[in-house]
Amino acid sequence: MSLLDDLRAALGDRAVLTDPAETAGYSSDWRRLYSGLPLAVIRPSSTDQVVRAVTLCAKAGVAIIPQGGNTSMVGGAVPSVDGTEIVLSLERLRALRAIDPVDLTMTVEAGVTLAAAQAMAAEQGMLLPLSISSEGSAQIGGVLATNAGGNNTLRFGNARDLVLGLEVVLADGQVWHGLRHLHKDNTGYALRQVFVGSEGTLGIITAAVLRLQPGVTARASAFCALPSVEQALALLARLRARDAGALHAFEYMSGGSVDLVLAHIEGVARPVEAAAHYVLVDCAASGPEGAAQALQDRLEDVLGAALEAGELTDAALAQNEAQRLAFWKIREEHAEAQKRAGASIKNDISVPLAALPELMDAAAAACRALVPGIRIAPFGHLGDGNIHFNLVQPTGAGGAAFLAQSEPLMEAVGEVVRRLSGSFSAEHGVGRLKTGMMQSWRGGVELDLMRRIKSALDPAGRLNPRVIFPAKNAEDAAG
Amino acid sequence: MSLLDDLRAALGDRAVLTDPAETAGYSSDWRRLYSGLPLAVIRPSSTDQVVRAVTLCAKAGVAIIPQGGNTSMVGGAVPSVDGTEIVLSLERLRALRAIDPVDLTMTVEAGVTLAAAQAMAAEQGMLLPLSISSEGSAQIGGVLATNAGGNNTLRFGNARDLVLGLEVVLADGQVWHGLRHLHKDNTGYALRQVFVGSEGTLGIITAAVLRLQPGVTARASAFCALPSVEQALALLARLRARDAGALHAFEYMSGGSVDLVLAHIEGVARPVEAAAHYVLVDCAASGPEGAAQALQDRLEDVLGAALEAGELTDAALAQNEAQRLAFWKIREEHAEAQKRAGASIKNDISVPLAALPELMDAAAAACRALVPGIRIAPFGHLGDGNIHFNLVQPTGAGGAAFLAQSEPLMEAVGEVVRRLSGSFSAEHGVGRLKTGMMQSWRGGVELDLMRRIKSALDPAGRLNPRVIFPAKNAEDAAG
Repeated sequence: MSLLDDLRAALGDRAVLTDPAETAGYSSDWRRLYSGLPLAVIRPSSTDQVVRAVTLCAKAGVAIIPQGGNTSMVGGAVPSVDGTEIVLSLERLRALRAIDPVDLTMTVEAGVTLAAAQAMAAEQGMLLPLSISSEGSAQIGGVLATNAGGNNTLRFGNARDLVLGLEVVLADGQVWHGLRHLHKDNTGYALRQVFVGSEGTLGIITAAVLRLQPGVTARASAFCALPSVEQALALLARLRARDAGALHAFEYMSGGSVDLVLAHIEGVARPVEAAAHYVLVDCAASGPEGAAQALQDRLEDVLGAALEAGELTDAALAQNEAQRLAFWKIREEHAEAQKRAGASIKNDISVPLAALPELMDAAAAACRALVPGIRIAPFGHLGDGNIHFNLVQPTGAGGAAFLAQSEPLMEAVGEVVRRLSGSFSAEHGVGRLKTGMMQSWRGGVELDLMRRIKSALDPAGRLNPRVIFPAKNAEDAAG
Repeated sequence: MSLLDDLRAALGDRAVLTDPAETAGYSSDWRRLYSGLPLAVIRPSSTDQVVRAVTLCAKAGVAIIPQGGNTSMVGGAVPSVDGTEIVLSLERLRALRAIDPVDLTMTVEAGVTLAAAQAMAAEQGMLLPLSISSEGSAQIGGVLATNAGGNNTLRFGNARDLVLGLEVVLADGQVWHGLRHLHKDNTGYALRQVFVGSEGTLGIITAAVLRLQPGVTARASAFCALPSVEQALALLARLRARDAGALHAFEYMSGGSVDLVLAHIEGVARPVEAAAHYVLVDCAASGPEGAAQALQDRLEDVLGAALEAGELTDAALAQNEAQRLAFWKIREEHAEAQKRAGASIKNDISVPLAALPELMDAAAAACRALVPGIRIAPFGHLGDGNIHFNLVQPTGAGGAAFLAQSEPLMEAVGEVVRRLSGSFSAEHGVGRLKTGMMQSWRGGVELDLMRRIKSALDPAGRLNPRVIFPAKNAEDAAG
């Protein structure tokens, strides 16, 4: 076929994979929810090669699935099953183009993993303040295309808030050279914000300028046991009133989800007495010697006052980095523990903070009514109102029977979230998994505006088809 | 004429102004650079009235100039001279719809002034961290439509970074109900980011959800004298390394511009010895009793070390709020002092921070070569790389003769900025004043992408014509 020949001529033979043994890793999503069959997987090594490949695909009318680390939780980068689409992997665009300690910015290519980018910043004494569980595999291009969130958004915002400039290859192969590293620039529409979070449907990000922070030299962390979600909100307010700038993370874990970690992960111990709710507080600062002790003292003060006020029943302050990492291990092993505990259903939801107590109660009650014995294991970024309201099969029951209940369970949770003016996808995006919800939650004017932007930037609909937008016939049926 | 009758029927007679005595205040910009003649000025009092008015204008094919406090520096909201356009003032949409101390958010209507919104937040113990010189008149709708910047962007970002949700009336009268107050929501394109900074060309913002911060209870400020811009950057790095979270403002003033303030504004005294460069440092924190002293002590420490390192030649620490306000008065009177000093030319530019020393030297030299005796009076938000590189006529020379040199002077500055990869409008936007620069600075793919988005959302081009985009024939001529 001539497109493949042209691609080989443009990129080199080794950059065009068609052998199923080689393309398999690019053809299914991380959760194995979707599987496809690409015409080819191409691996350009420069922006210029991306341009040549996209131009050839445009001429041939072939759709492109841009792919980074392929760590989507929602089937965000899977080719169709009919062998007609090209997977374009950015993994070989791995250069650090520039890093500027005066300006606190770095210019990295799309294929650099988030962890590698963090390390590049740290080497120069700076902090790239974005941290997600999959950072070892997730690549900057995908992180931006999905507006990733994670653990430090409370203090520094989502991926969107860290982007100053982008280089983007458009659907027709033109390049938008928007790699500006300016902290302020009001010269027309904020195009970078249009591409960030667009899930590869409007253009292919090949490089980005990211805003950094001064390096962190002091940390203080605590693991807290709490009687209720209301008290967790009271503790958050107390911490913010004391030192909002130092509060980098406020992570929630339900008693049920911590129990799963204790049961299924080796080498983990609960640092506080048992409780229905836990919070991991992480504070950080930059400063000379003595800053760490001052930070620790302030945190201890706040926790002491919270204990007295009954907001906490117990708290452990990390005495060293090893203890701090042990606290974080409990938080980070949640997904793995749930996997080992049996079949599970994930809900990545957000609500206004004040609605969190009601969310937890009402959603749990609705799920228990549907599946007696269901294990309710919510955890997540409470400081952002973002909870992974995950559900694990009853002990001893069949996994398949539980998963057969996925739809009613997700709908039951969704109904509560919707009543509380929340979102059905706080940080994971829409992908293919949640397109069906776009019609009912974001339909009408909002979805129409999105379609108009899609048509303006990718009129032929050749960039990552099937994500974000519900199929037209589904829309008609719903409308 | 029937449109006016229809508008009167929909909004009430008093909401439709046609008497030139009444419409004059809405028909010129604040700087008196542009003046127009509206068909009418309409003042709806609710989103519903905005919808009815926009629908009627759409049916009649009449263009709309959305207007807030009318404080644009670039002619951002002026009707045409031929009496065919409607000015739609949002000033009567003044409600605080909601404020949430748990979530740290407020929902305000477009016509609330920024100062009033700040006061509403402060009343509930919170901080709306956006501050600009015109905040007493500028309204939230305009502040968002122009992505306003100001004094605290170093710590909290531009207007764009504070917006969680929007309510927008579209060109055809449809409403996008996007008033979500969620800190995380990845359900499709970030439409709010498309409207923020679009200068009223894509839709009319009628209300917004803004992100707030805990109230500030402690402040420490210093006025510093420095030998060079390089040393100002060194001081900034030193402050960031010590306590980045507390650094709310880092404002630069050249010796020449402070001299103008001392000469033309009453009741102002220089708090430090004379120097070629000055910086106003503002630190803030939330915390209990003792926090203010701790903040003051930390700032004093840093300044002591900077003095020892030769980064400063002198510094004054504000001993009380009155002194702090006196420091800020020097900074805030810059525009007024320059006005009184004679004719002046404004350049609102930004460059990467490391390029600031070269910018200052090269731009000053270029201007002096063109106009001997010219007074170079730069000041601004150095921490963001954003300098108002303002130029004042030579003493005793004619103002008109000086202004006749505007174009070559602005071009000379622009040439330096461009060589340093900067922006010709850091925070004031494009408006009508700078459309000519869009072609040469942002032309090609970037401007084409903006045009595509404009066509997708306002196909008939009836929302704020003539701003941002260069006239087609100018484009052809340049292209």
